[in-house]
Amino acid sequence: MILIKLGGSAFSNKAKPLSFHEEPVRNLALLIKQHGITPVLIHGGGSFAHPVAKAYGLDKGIRDDAQLIGVSLTSLTLSLLNERITSIFSKLGLPTYTIRTGAVFMRTLSGLKLSGDVVDLVRRLVGMRIIPVFYGDVIHDYELGFSILSGDEIMVELAKRLKPRYALFLMDVEGVYSEGPRRGELIRVFKPSTSISYSSSGVDATGGLMGKLKHAIELAEMSVQTYLCSVMDQESISLILTGGEPRGCTRIEAT
Amino acid sequence: MILIKLGGSAFSNKAKPLSFHEEPVRNLALLIKQHGITPVLIHGGGSFAHPVAKAYGLDKGIRDDAQLIGVSLTSLTLSLLNERITSIFSKLGLPTYTIRTGAVFMRTLSGLKLSGDVVDLVRRLVGMRIIPVFYGDVIHDYELGFSILSGDEIMVELAKRLKPRYALFLMDVEGVYSEGPRRGELIRVFKPSTSISYSSSGVDATGGLMGKLKHAIELAEMSVQTYLCSVMDQESISLILTGGEPRGCTRIEAT
Repeated sequence: MILIKLGGSAFSNKAKPLSFHEEPVRNLALLIKQHGITPVLIHGGGSFAHPVAKAYGLDKGIRDDAQLIGVSLTSLTLSLLNERITSIFSKLGLPTYTIRTGAVFMRTLSGLKLSGDVVDLVRRLVGMRIIPVFYGDVIHDYELGFSILSGDEIMVELAKRLKPRYALFLMDVEGVYSEGPRRGELIRVFKPSTSISYSSSGVDATGGLMGKLKHAIELAEMSVQTYLCSVMDQESISLILTGGEPRGCTRIEAT
Repeated sequence: MILIKLGGSAFSNKAKPLSFHEEPVRNLALLIKQHGITPVLIHGGGSFAHPVAKAYGLDKGIRDDAQLIGVSLTSLTLSLLNERITSIFSKLGLPTYTIRTGAVFMRTLSGLKLSGDVVDLVRRLVGMRIIPVFYGDVIHDYELGFSILSGDEIMVELAKRLKPRYALFLMDVEGVYSEGPRRGELIRVFKPSTSISYSSSGVDATGGLMGKLKHAIELAEMSVQTYLCSVMDQESISLILTGGEPRGCTRIEAT
């Protein structure tokens, strides 16, 4: 089993609402087709969901009923985005099946609750060679009414139950750099002890690189082979998918 | 709790793929707003899903991997339809939250399996005054790979768990007629013993009127007050929602 997270930055420009770059998604779909694999795909909300969710303050929970329309609008834009991504897969002959994250995940007072049936559904879909698709979503929260569940969190939660061999985080950059996005040196192996000096410019709406690294380390701690790669680095992704060690990318190690 | 099924015929023309009539959906949303209720809404696939699902033979299960793209395409058109319906609600200030049916329902060898968490989620959403939305969908089937779950079946399955007071099936006609759609007399109270003479012209892709009546009777047997109405009959729907007896519509009785 392989989990692939297609980050929002990989296919959209945070500064431009509803911007969408087809090429990186198509590149990923072509690699999946070429290697004949059936991964579980998780995509971010990119510039579709973040501006709406932020405008309605959904990252801070529901304090006012007027925010509930923001839940509907965020859901709508995420649905539009999911259609764009899955239709690129369909055009290449790769069947997908979207499992709306908020239909199966709830945030309770004791942590995330995932419907047990979903694990069975995902295994069955992969067995039929149909790609299960999840996405970062606005989900019901027992305490806050609604809150955001990021694609990176979904990776960790699914990995706990599916025990994948690989987890790939695909981004718009080659991996983790020592001094910020594309600044300093590309770090080939990142461990919890690795020090990097990042300015706030590297931070996005769902926790930024530090959040991503925290989740990636959790995956590595579960003995999942975890990599952060550029979505356009076909050679490295192909090497990982065939059991090799890539020349690009950052590999995450637990210790 | 009120379950409302917005039938495909109520908002689209079966003979015209992707046809959509906004007015009936807006009419329903206005009634919901006027009465300040938070129903659970279930919509059909109408001319969005049926032509694609039929073209790929999804009503007969998966016998060939080439049909799997049909699963993706049916999913896409259903998602588009759901966006159109929920955006009409959003424009009127009514928040909705779509629970993709196929994410929570699977058809197993012993019947339909619904994730238990969903019942909790639906209750919580209604408690927050956000309308949970389901739709007739292509779902995973243990035996056939995939099969269709109709909106009428969803009504029955949700009613078993949610024990609603009312179930409304909204259609393009006033109710059940004695001799076919709009032919003969409108039947005011339909019981299992009521005889009607219908030609095949009254049959649609998911079981036709006979299928709908079978499901409506199942609801009535659970002591749910069950009606079949025209989506445009504001007066009758308002009367039902305020505990009265409508002049239009067909009421379903179990015995």
